[in-house]
Amino acid sequence: MITVDDALAHLMALVSPLNSEEIPLIEAAGRVLARDVTARRDQPPFAASAMDGYAMRGDEVEQHSILKVVGESAAGHGFEGQIKPGQAVRIFTGAPVPAGADFVVIQEDVTRNNDLITIANPPDGKSNIRALGNDFTIGDTITAPRLLSPSDVALLASMNIATAPVARRPQVALISTGDELVMPGENPGPDQIIASNTFGLKAMLDALGAHCRILPIARDTEDSLTMAFDLAAGADLIITIGGASVGDHDLVGKVAGDLGMERAFYKVAMRPGKPLMAGRMAGSAMVGLPGNPVSAMVCGHIFIAPMIHAMLGLGTDKPTALTATLSAEMPANGPRQHYMRGILQQGQIRAFERQDSALLTVLADANVLLIRPPYDPARAIGSQVDYIPI
Amino acid sequence: MITVDDALAHLMALVSPLNSEEIPLIEAAGRVLARDVTARRDQPPFAASAMDGYAMRGDEVEQHSILKVVGESAAGHGFEGQIKPGQAVRIFTGAPVPAGADFVVIQEDVTRNNDLITIANPPDGKSNIRALGNDFTIGDTITAPRLLSPSDVALLASMNIATAPVARRPQVALISTGDELVMPGENPGPDQIIASNTFGLKAMLDALGAHCRILPIARDTEDSLTMAFDLAAGADLIITIGGASVGDHDLVGKVAGDLGMERAFYKVAMRPGKPLMAGRMAGSAMVGLPGNPVSAMVCGHIFIAPMIHAMLGLGTDKPTALTATLSAEMPANGPRQHYMRGILQQGQIRAFERQDSALLTVLADANVLLIRPPYDPARAIGSQVDYIPI
Repeated sequence: MITVDDALAHLMALVSPLNSEEIPLIEAAGRVLARDVTARRDQPPFAASAMDGYAMRGDEVEQHSILKVVGESAAGHGFEGQIKPGQAVRIFTGAPVPAGADFVVIQEDVTRNNDLITIANPPDGKSNIRALGNDFTIGDTITAPRLLSPSDVALLASMNIATAPVARRPQVALISTGDELVMPGENPGPDQIIASNTFGLKAMLDALGAHCRILPIARDTEDSLTMAFDLAAGADLIITIGGASVGDHDLVGKVAGDLGMERAFYKVAMRPGKPLMAGRMAGSAMVGLPGNPVSAMVCGHIFIAPMIHAMLGLGTDKPTALTATLSAEMPANGPRQHYMRGILQQGQIRAFERQDSALLTVLADANVLLIRPPYDPARAIGSQVDYIPI
Repeated sequence: MITVDDALAHLMALVSPLNSEEIPLIEAAGRVLARDVTARRDQPPFAASAMDGYAMRGDEVEQHSILKVVGESAAGHGFEGQIKPGQAVRIFTGAPVPAGADFVVIQEDVTRNNDLITIANPPDGKSNIRALGNDFTIGDTITAPRLLSPSDVALLASMNIATAPVARRPQVALISTGDELVMPGENPGPDQIIASNTFGLKAMLDALGAHCRILPIARDTEDSLTMAFDLAAGADLIITIGGASVGDHDLVGKVAGDLGMERAFYKVAMRPGKPLMAGRMAGSAMVGLPGNPVSAMVCGHIFIAPMIHAMLGLGTDKPTALTATLSAEMPANGPRQHYMRGILQQGQIRAFERQDSALLTVLADANVLLIRPPYDPARAIGSQVDYIPI
């Protein structure tokens, strides 16, 4: 048996960052910036008023001063001329500050009578002007890799970046295996169950930036498995679910081997999970997950999510666990790292009573996996435990 | 001026839960379940082996017992007969336990010689059998509303739910207003800047389950604004950005009023943000956000996100703030609720130095908004502060 960290290291060696593609900015949120991009603009591109008011020379700003309004600067329509002594320009938020002016008195501090304004209240020292390039200047860089947030997209837009270079989505082929499976909506026989793992994994991995295809269920024959692998050709990552242990009916390893995969089995010291198969075949990384629904989903979080991250160029570091305070005691853990389904509410965390790895209802109620290292001692209420959100 | 909570209550009164639509399960992750759904299956649908091994009568499980293997039960292919005294059936994980058997001895505890097995190791008390309906039974319910996670999708699949009733996506029309704006990729004039708010808001709201359309930029004329509202017709929510204060060039309120909107202005005691316009026009909710990029995005998080939630049927409760420990001191807050851009790292939170609401670079570096209530006193390192993740 190998540790979870060792298994993860083996899996990460199977993948590398994918190439990039240029996409419209409007589609860029949630994608990973693949190359540094630089601002094509200064922002603001001119000294801009931060308030509605009157632009003037700072040395003329004084209570009871009277100035003549000689024009207007609105957003999109600046004042063309130069402000001379004794002059002011009506100005609106975001508008360019006219040449000669270096102060904006806010409109609430002014009384106006036709073309004349009087500074009624003594202004504080703030000029109410945003300097040219206050936010960013031409050539300022957004550094790749970076998972693009809504704020990043707004920033890229304001830098006049209309298309963004992002990592290509990893193409993932998902293959359920087993004569016992039928697709949702079909009529299962008495010995059959519904395929659920591919649906859960597709939802999980697509949300991380992958593009998953669910292939037809492979039956427990060499022909059916061979056909499934044929259909998966070209994927960056092929994931099989079920049929990957050493049981008499587990053909996945044999068929993958026949197709040229240098395969390795890793018996991983974890619960739930256990045997993983992994290797590379014909340009694709390939991972065989256990067929048990909860095991498959937990392995998705622990092993496949980091592989997707790595393919997106987000690096190969193990995801850092978070920490929360335990609200229910837990018995000592055995020799295998245990990912316990649990719930985090208002900073308090606890594991569910039922940890049978066949229980999708329990997984669906969980929002965290509590991480119990091998031989973790019994834990009292109030102790700090590591978890990953799911 | 009204409080943020009062403004939110006014806005929430403008929207109500949308109707639902039936979609394929494969598209259901991230959508909101609109009606309770019930399992169409028992899971497991039969008593199932949890291990690879041999099924037999529990009262015959004893070290050194010798049993005759009379058949096999594999996943998808159960054993048809009944187990009689002295008999065992080879069984694999997930396969139906044959009639007459109520115990599975794992294969590691057995030695086999042709058709005969000997129980080599004394088994522990676990039967290694999952009872019929152990996970769920026919009629078990998943309760709406529920934002569907990947685990939920797996659970729905295993319940044989092929299509799911989900809340329709709120249709949102985004209108930037202002003569100073051009779209990313265009060539701005010397007094112009790039429209960024609609891009950031679309990314934010689409991720929450909305479907946003970015409309052409409306110019500062009544005709242009009227055309933009025409194009927005049919949306559940129309959002204008900019032109919504009381400046001389702010026409949005006038045009919306002419089009029949009962409009209200709310001067909200918040930073950044300030005036909001809101009302209903021709079947749509309408909200006017400030044009300042950071203000627009913060108002998106504070006001628009809860409206999207409410339209999706997720309720009208104010989102609960989270709490973290301050790692840098903060001065006292003024009379307005301040949403400070900041960063949360390893449980420690701090506000950035620069809080000018024109700085998209600062917003893009932030992963939280620290919530400072009106007149919040100065805060020392180590104090607990509320925040919302962004």
